[in-house]
Amino acid sequence: MSQIQMEQEIPKRVKRFQDELIARDVDGALIVQKTDLYYFSGTDQDAHLWIPASGPPLLMVRKSLGRAMKDAVHLQVVPLNSLSRLPDYIQGAGPGKKPGRIGLEMDVLPANRYLVYQGFFPETELVDVSAAVRETRMIKSPYEISCITAAARMADAMYENVPQFLQESERDIDLTGRIEAWYRSRGHCGIIPTRGFNHEPLYGQIMAGKGAAMPSSTAGPLGGKGLGPFFSHGASMDRIEPHAPILIDYAANVDGYIADQTRVFSLGRLDDSLTRAHEVALRIQDALSGKGRPGVAAKALYHLALEIAEEAGLAGRFMGYPDPVPFVGHGVGLELDELPVIGRGSDTLLAEGVVIALEPKFVFPGRGAVGIENTFVVSRDGLKKLNTFPDAIRIC
Amino acid sequence: MSQIQMEQEIPKRVKRFQDELIARDVDGALIVQKTDLYYFSGTDQDAHLWIPASGPPLLMVRKSLGRAMKDAVHLQVVPLNSLSRLPDYIQGAGPGKKPGRIGLEMDVLPANRYLVYQGFFPETELVDVSAAVRETRMIKSPYEISCITAAARMADAMYENVPQFLQESERDIDLTGRIEAWYRSRGHCGIIPTRGFNHEPLYGQIMAGKGAAMPSSTAGPLGGKGLGPFFSHGASMDRIEPHAPILIDYAANVDGYIADQTRVFSLGRLDDSLTRAHEVALRIQDALSGKGRPGVAAKALYHLALEIAEEAGLAGRFMGYPDPVPFVGHGVGLELDELPVIGRGSDTLLAEGVVIALEPKFVFPGRGAVGIENTFVVSRDGLKKLNTFPDAIRIC
Repeated sequence: MSQIQMEQEIPKRVKRFQDELIARDVDGALIVQKTDLYYFSGTDQDAHLWIPASGPPLLMVRKSLGRAMKDAVHLQVVPLNSLSRLPDYIQGAGPGKKPGRIGLEMDVLPANRYLVYQGFFPETELVDVSAAVRETRMIKSPYEISCITAAARMADAMYENVPQFLQESERDIDLTGRIEAWYRSRGHCGIIPTRGFNHEPLYGQIMAGKGAAMPSSTAGPLGGKGLGPFFSHGASMDRIEPHAPILIDYAANVDGYIADQTRVFSLGRLDDSLTRAHEVALRIQDALSGKGRPGVAAKALYHLALEIAEEAGLAGRFMGYPDPVPFVGHGVGLELDELPVIGRGSDTLLAEGVVIALEPKFVFPGRGAVGIENTFVVSRDGLKKLNTFPDAIRIC
Repeated sequence: MSQIQMEQEIPKRVKRFQDELIARDVDGALIVQKTDLYYFSGTDQDAHLWIPASGPPLLMVRKSLGRAMKDAVHLQVVPLNSLSRLPDYIQGAGPGKKPGRIGLEMDVLPANRYLVYQGFFPETELVDVSAAVRETRMIKSPYEISCITAAARMADAMYENVPQFLQESERDIDLTGRIEAWYRSRGHCGIIPTRGFNHEPLYGQIMAGKGAAMPSSTAGPLGGKGLGPFFSHGASMDRIEPHAPILIDYAANVDGYIADQTRVFSLGRLDDSLTRAHEVALRIQDALSGKGRPGVAAKALYHLALEIAEEAGLAGRFMGYPDPVPFVGHGVGLELDELPVIGRGSDTLLAEGVVIALEPKFVFPGRGAVGIENTFVVSRDGLKKLNTFPDAIRIC
């Protein structure tokens, strides 16, 4: 983010979040998770950001103070040499009275840290504002959409190189290394942050043939054989076989913003049932992108997807096997698992500026996985697809 | 871990942990963090492991049940379709009475989850057993040391290739991509897990020239320019310049086990002050590895290191600038930030089977960083260095 972008972006983000705090009757929020901190301050240094329900935020920095001051020139910045100074700073920054309700990112904050804060504010009610953070972040600004669009371009360019990478790769893991090196050379930071507990911030999954159909612990539809019981998803050390789907779900990252994308390649033709299932995935994508627009409930897209899968006789293979996930897409932005969930129980209404990845996929035990994933922005006129690399299976 | 290794390893690990639970008067512990779960069960599936203070553990699996049952054949495994079933299972698995004190990994467990558990066990005291987990994991078995030794071999072989990679790399980030691709092709899982909040599980840091001397948010001695305020440490997009130190701190991983290692390369000779500082780092390493043995306090090693840095007139550049870290090493195993901390306040006594990385480093603002890092196992006779790649600066 340039200095000018930051000066335009950050106050709007803070203001929208403050409206959420007021609506929840919270006096202020203590933001500490790295990604949220960057979103609201423009720096990822080790710091606490106090956002009062009204008035300017205060950035309290542990390390590095110098870099935080350079990154966040628009904010008031102070050193935080000890956590025990928090109450002084927060009372000093507030409206004069002790805050009665302080918001925390309780979905990611470690329990120990929560109890430390409770010790510092014994008479204060600590409440979870992670939903308010995530709902604020769900609506992307034009600047954010431009970053995600640039990430989609990065992913498109990577996929163009896959036929070449496949020529040089014997195994899933070799292909993975080539794709990662390519992304790195374009400035990819090497991680795709996620919010979920126990989720590693991986680029995604690259899996050839039947390995892709092995179930795993991941929160997504696909598993992967992985490297052993210590790391049991994604790429394996197995040889890439001909006539088996090579599924590449590997997200790009530009200036922290993610574009999620999946494509299927194969060495030689796939059998008809896999090819047909891929076509059903494309049909689902078309139907969903036709239906999605501001005001439509996220769950309506999921149910439409499920309906098409059922009509095609593929319900039992849809979104994972034997543990299908109850969603067909998810928000993306600075994290891979942003709101909204495009899933069974999700009442969230799509709105202008929401960015989602739709990923209808089918898993065939013992054979592999096929499907598609693209990143879409919700505009006034409907869903706009950001990725341009062709959706069809690419036979190499 | 093979089935035979697991059958030998896991019961011993569980038993040592149960002794810690008994010493802390805890009725049992609920283990959920992925790495701890793998350590105590042999699987990294999405699961809860109940370890009572005495008696057999119970593995309650959310996803994938099939893989967990295959990985952990030696354990009793049940499905956990809803967290609300936890109280039933735990009371059924226990000695008949409700547990009065349940241990949790409160250093990593999200606050929300902690409150959910408290809701399930309203009359139970939830206590932090993360220290007990980490102290159990601190003592490595011969099997674990063999994995870490294999990881050190992987790192040694990687560093042999660096001169070649440097020829093909214009910038820090290109070098990073090549090193990562090499590691991947040898079966590296692409992450180096850490326990600390907000710490990304990165391989480490690769930084050329003055970028390496930029301070950052990291918990280690070095910073790095990084890619922007959204990711402000490690490699940058800057060109690698001649006559400037190229510091490569990039950990290997074999079967989940880490070997940490740092080496300095350069294109052409470095100036004498940097070369001398590197020699001081090697002197510190020699002194520490001569002093370290079972029964020696971790802090004694740190103070000896600091003393040698002071004598050499380099105290102001030691272990980071302007925010030096108060340690010169750390435990390694399944995570990068294991116990013991070889640091200022650390009363932990070295013991047979402890594995540590010693990393004396010096940072020169505007110029770069030099230093060394190797992984050592504490044996009866002293520290045994696992890495074999030469410690000297390699001029390419």
